[in-house]
Amino acid sequence: MAKIADKYFSADPWKVIERGFNPAYSRVSESVFSLSNENLGVRGFFDEGGTADSLRGCYVNGVYELEDLPKSYCGIIDKRHFMIPSADWLMTGITLDGETLDLGSVCFDEFVRELDMRTGTLSRQFVWQTKSGKKLRLTFLRFTDMLHGDRAYQRITLEPLNFSGTAELTSGITFDVKHEGRGVCYWHSLRLAADKQSCAVQARTLASGQEVFAAALLSVSGDPVQDEKTAALRAELPLVKGTPLHIDKRVVILFNGLEGDALWQAGQSALRGTERVSLGAALAAQKVYWAEHWRISDVRIEDESGGEDQQGIRFCSFQMAQTYNGGSVRHNIGAKGLTGEAYNGHAFWDTETCCMPFYLFTNPRAAKMLLMFRFNTLPQALKRAKMLDCEGACYPVATLNGDEACDLWQHASLQLQPSTAVAYGIWHYALVTGDQVFIREYGAEMLLQIARFLRSRAAQNPQTGEYGYFGVMGPDEFHMMVHDNAYTNYMGKRALAYAADVIEALKSEAPAVYAALRKKTGLKEEEVSGWRNVSEHMALPMMEDGLIEQHDGYFKLPHIDIHAIPVSEFPLYNHWSYDRIYRTDMIKQPDVLMFLYLYSASFSTEVKRKNYEFYEPRTIHESSLSPSIHSILAAELGRMDEACKFFGFATRLDLDNYNRNTREGLHTTSIAMAWVNIVYGFAGLRSDGGGLSFAPRLPSHWSRLGFSLTWQGRIIEVEMEREQTRFTLKQGEPMDALIYGIRREIGTEGLTVPAL
Amino acid sequence: MAKIADKYFSADPWKVIERGFNPAYSRVSESVFSLSNENLGVRGFFDEGGTADSLRGCYVNGVYELEDLPKSYCGIIDKRHFMIPSADWLMTGITLDGETLDLGSVCFDEFVRELDMRTGTLSRQFVWQTKSGKKLRLTFLRFTDMLHGDRAYQRITLEPLNFSGTAELTSGITFDVKHEGRGVCYWHSLRLAADKQSCAVQARTLASGQEVFAAALLSVSGDPVQDEKTAALRAELPLVKGTPLHIDKRVVILFNGLEGDALWQAGQSALRGTERVSLGAALAAQKVYWAEHWRISDVRIEDESGGEDQQGIRFCSFQMAQTYNGGSVRHNIGAKGLTGEAYNGHAFWDTETCCMPFYLFTNPRAAKMLLMFRFNTLPQALKRAKMLDCEGACYPVATLNGDEACDLWQHASLQLQPSTAVAYGIWHYALVTGDQVFIREYGAEMLLQIARFLRSRAAQNPQTGEYGYFGVMGPDEFHMMVHDNAYTNYMGKRALAYAADVIEALKSEAPAVYAALRKKTGLKEEEVSGWRNVSEHMALPMMEDGLIEQHDGYFKLPHIDIHAIPVSEFPLYNHWSYDRIYRTDMIKQPDVLMFLYLYSASFSTEVKRKNYEFYEPRTIHESSLSPSIHSILAAELGRMDEACKFFGFATRLDLDNYNRNTREGLHTTSIAMAWVNIVYGFAGLRSDGGGLSFAPRLPSHWSRLGFSLTWQGRIIEVEMEREQTRFTLKQGEPMDALIYGIRREIGTEGLTVPAL
Repeated sequence: MAKIADKYFSADPWKVIERGFNPAYSRVSESVFSLSNENLGVRGFFDEGGTADSLRGCYVNGVYELEDLPKSYCGIIDKRHFMIPSADWLMTGITLDGETLDLGSVCFDEFVRELDMRTGTLSRQFVWQTKSGKKLRLTFLRFTDMLHGDRAYQRITLEPLNFSGTAELTSGITFDVKHEGRGVCYWHSLRLAADKQSCAVQARTLASGQEVFAAALLSVSGDPVQDEKTAALRAELPLVKGTPLHIDKRVVILFNGLEGDALWQAGQSALRGTERVSLGAALAAQKVYWAEHWRISDVRIEDESGGEDQQGIRFCSFQMAQTYNGGSVRHNIGAKGLTGEAYNGHAFWDTETCCMPFYLFTNPRAAKMLLMFRFNTLPQALKRAKMLDCEGACYPVATLNGDEACDLWQHASLQLQPSTAVAYGIWHYALVTGDQVFIREYGAEMLLQIARFLRSRAAQNPQTGEYGYFGVMGPDEFHMMVHDNAYTNYMGKRALAYAADVIEALKSEAPAVYAALRKKTGLKEEEVSGWRNVSEHMALPMMEDGLIEQHDGYFKLPHIDIHAIPVSEFPLYNHWSYDRIYRTDMIKQPDVLMFLYLYSASFSTEVKRKNYEFYEPRTIHESSLSPSIHSILAAELGRMDEACKFFGFATRLDLDNYNRNTREGLHTTSIAMAWVNIVYGFAGLRSDGGGLSFAPRLPSHWSRLGFSLTWQGRIIEVEMEREQTRFTLKQGEPMDALIYGIRREIGTEGLTVPAL
Repeated sequence: MAKIADKYFSADPWKVIERGFNPAYSRVSESVFSLSNENLGVRGFFDEGGTADSLRGCYVNGVYELEDLPKSYCGIIDKRHFMIPSADWLMTGITLDGETLDLGSVCFDEFVRELDMRTGTLSRQFVWQTKSGKKLRLTFLRFTDMLHGDRAYQRITLEPLNFSGTAELTSGITFDVKHEGRGVCYWHSLRLAADKQSCAVQARTLASGQEVFAAALLSVSGDPVQDEKTAALRAELPLVKGTPLHIDKRVVILFNGLEGDALWQAGQSALRGTERVSLGAALAAQKVYWAEHWRISDVRIEDESGGEDQQGIRFCSFQMAQTYNGGSVRHNIGAKGLTGEAYNGHAFWDTETCCMPFYLFTNPRAAKMLLMFRFNTLPQALKRAKMLDCEGACYPVATLNGDEACDLWQHASLQLQPSTAVAYGIWHYALVTGDQVFIREYGAEMLLQIARFLRSRAAQNPQTGEYGYFGVMGPDEFHMMVHDNAYTNYMGKRALAYAADVIEALKSEAPAVYAALRKKTGLKEEEVSGWRNVSEHMALPMMEDGLIEQHDGYFKLPHIDIHAIPVSEFPLYNHWSYDRIYRTDMIKQPDVLMFLYLYSASFSTEVKRKNYEFYEPRTIHESSLSPSIHSILAAELGRMDEACKFFGFATRLDLDNYNRNTREGLHTTSIAMAWVNIVYGFAGLRSDGGGLSFAPRLPSHWSRLGFSLTWQGRIIEVEMEREQTRFTLKQGEPMDALIYGIRREIGTEGLTVPAL
């Protein structure tokens, strides 16, 4: 593998720790130290700001701005939306002896920044030594309230070590925040207020017209300070040598569809609501929340590695729970979560293929909510298909609100995988949850419209008569405008067949629902047989030995030794002429291995081996999803060394900044895949063959791996050790599962199976 | 063929005539009625403006604005330049009885607009009937001075038919002109002046900082009128019933690299220079110029068609002579000449392949000037290759100044044909002119750098070991990111071999020049053998029967019946989802037929026939170059009906608005190809085999075709009739040529050869 770790943080099973501040890693740290409660997200920047390199991002899920694009060709979007920073609620200024706290310029020592995953808090401590010789120990603590999506807290502790005196604090709320890439503040303020202990600002975005209310209540009194987009307090802090002084800030940020006076009043009411809860009480509740999370969702690894794997997987699980937990049908999972502005806050096509398994097996309600997001945005997908001269529904490559927001036509128009992924997600959701009601009420209609799209977009190869997709780009975005891409063809084949299955089942089993759906969609019966025909005659270029050609002509592409590419050239997008990445056999992320994983039961181990061996050396993993897929397949093929190597890469992608772009935000989708990596990879879970199957393969440097799963109302605990694996039913009815290919019953008394 | 004529103008051998004004054709007429003297271009808009649909374009060759582009991937340009409208020198307002002349709203009759190709003038006449019942005959005449690139003239004649009285005229110069697509005026004025008979404005572009001086001298006196960017006169015109009153306006527009006071003084001096010449005298000189042009460059067709072909080819020759005649090494040939803002005034890659033959055989000095444009912009081509991670020189797809200005990466980065075209142009220029001095002084260095580029961009197919170009787009822009495109490969093969030939010849024949070139370029000897190796092992996918696959995988593309596409869907770019045009076997313009034509002597008639028969039915001719290539090959294959059908299309592309986009400007490159169509197609001229060869094939509906050619200092007149063709040497030494494959001598006494 051509990528190497850039280790910076200390390993710890429950924490991420930065000892001493290295300005060169400032933005990487900010990303890693991000907090979120699914609704409010905040990067781990310095509360007091300063001149150190920083992206001061406070985000509210679903808040975006709109932008017109230059008129282009048909089918290319002419308007795009993108996440913008919302109110900065951590705004803080501290002055002592006329010196302003700025870690970019003052003298300081004993710097420690810690993310604690048991409490969901970020703390930062250091000793500031002023030019006048005073030493002040400062501790900053913050958290976004997991129990109240619209609340967040900040505590600043000042402990004078060698003096008594006065410091000056400014603290407030400001919408004077610029989108970094565009250098524009998209907010105009509608109303401001500040009194001795609180301040509030209501603001509206310029083009999208979204309104947000943000307010803070402080534990000290001060004088109101306002300007156009900012409301704050300025307070004199009496400091007594050796005595810590706490300043608590309770924050409310509302974005709920209300506007004008109604929003203002709701906001003031919500702010008053926080008065009843001290920061300490909120923090205690927060600890309980996270304890419960870890009780159900923890992955426990005992190993000899110094805890890096344990830290890595906990970091992943922590970030997933922060990013999305099914709290709102209006949200999806941004590629960077709420940790940065790169990718514009957009959710990409990989929600259903990469993130959903984590939720299916830990929080099935959240998985359903993700699919409901797609159902609610079906009208936009229908419109998008029309734009592309196709029928049915084409789901967006990138979106916050359901509209296609990807302004790179080569992705937005050529990548069909968002639509096949939604079909896959529905199929997988039904398999794992058994929720047939969802299929009838929502799934069938989505599948029907996706099938129409996939049928209308398919075409016949005149030489073979087979169907395929011409002019596409698969998940491997290093090959563009290719024909018969194996991933696209196979995913389309399965989606078409499944849609036909569901519609035919509906016809026979729920004729009234079927009739209503036909009426609503104008479905003709011959459409369904048409889908089946295309599905059955879809090209899949497999050689005699089982090797599948990624797309027509792939084998003729010039070979490149990916290990010969200097690390300094990553990410390639930033260093190589754009066109150059498209004309070799180098792969960004695997197309063929991806569908061999997604439809694992449909392919033999031999086919997987053949393709893994061929494609692995050609894959550069410029996508953060790539290593986990490789790890899972490597484990299945018994290549445990490789499985572990790719796993380390996956869980620590951001902690060790493998892609050298963690500064822009976390790779949230990759984080989801890390969980999948463990349960699919090392426990050998497969969920695409009807029931569940396991094939535990404990990495040799681990002594124990434990985690839990939900399955159709059950909770199963899996404890893998060197010699054996123990499956215990913790909730629900006993069930059968295939363990190493043999049908076994898992009950409350537990089932112990010796390791292979 | 799927395209059909939209006939509007009357056929006439020497004129283009519009009888009666149809507002729906307003912009088409404006394009067709464009005038230019290579330096100043002006669309045929109404002098007096008004509310009719119009693009009021006055252009100065080489005047452009610069624009920053959003930062994108590496190798994609971040700045582009584009032609902008310059001073409107026809600015006119006429008021009578308080009614303002506006053909979009007033009553008028007897409208006739005429372009006269014997005088290079545009005239327009009509009778204006005011609401007060007055009838005023108005005649507008204009021309750009072919003898003085910086001069232009306007004459307005007012003849009151039923009254005597006063009309008010405003006439002047304004830089208050907006770029239509962008809606921006890119000029700020630096200095204005107006007195009783003249007015002047000097202005500067906002970003590119180019300065232009424009001034007018009127034959009537008036009161000065100025605003920020406009200087004009307002005059009361005493009208006497039945007596025509002429108002003459002499215009000077300077864009010569001078700035500030120096430019202002040069401009005033140039304006005074026009005082010595009356408009009548300038017009008389203009007539002499055009008479001389037609004496040398006329193509005479006698036919039964009512003169459409004659009109069409004269229109082409007229427009070419207006657009470019080698007057400045800073100019190239814009895709729309100076007739509209579409394509941003850019010259494209087809100058050397499509336009140059016209100049090589009628004005070889202009052909050399076109190549000198490439030599002078070699530094930009070197820089561009670096941007693309390649070596040597990569010439731009679109440019005004030598910098790549195409902001569609899929064209700018994937189309290698600008570079192969320059190499072809040098080769063809040397063949036709025998100018070895040019090759040594300029050609060799360009070829060396082009060869470096083509070597570094080539790669090996791992299955065959052959070289080819991966991830390219040929001239057929309906197939993108293809591999082993036959055009690109073959043109690259020949360019590499020619570069090696030239450098090796230089080494042995002009060692001092060779040594200097090596020193300048750091050429290593093994580079040259490397070019030859790649050239010799370049893939060209030819089937056993001679059919050449346009690119790897082309034969597997879904077939589309191009005749089934409704005319209303043209141009496809405006009606089809952009991605849709790329995934069928439909061809925009021929790749394979193009190089079979360019290197005609290297391919057998059988190969040409096979490929013509295969590709012709798949070609939609969305490029205006396409029909002429087809016509030439059809003629060679004896398919005279098709040759004539494609010829009509080519010469009348704009007169009959075949592509439905003449409103945006003329298809200048296509206009050049129309001349080529006649001499290569119907006279069967070939110039790529060493000497000249002819194979006259007169279209059956023509009784005579006559034209002249220059060849290495000679002038040869060709007169084709039904039964015979007569070749007469009009200047220079007798020469040999192959006539129908037989070597014959052409001398002053003339050679008569019976028709086939």
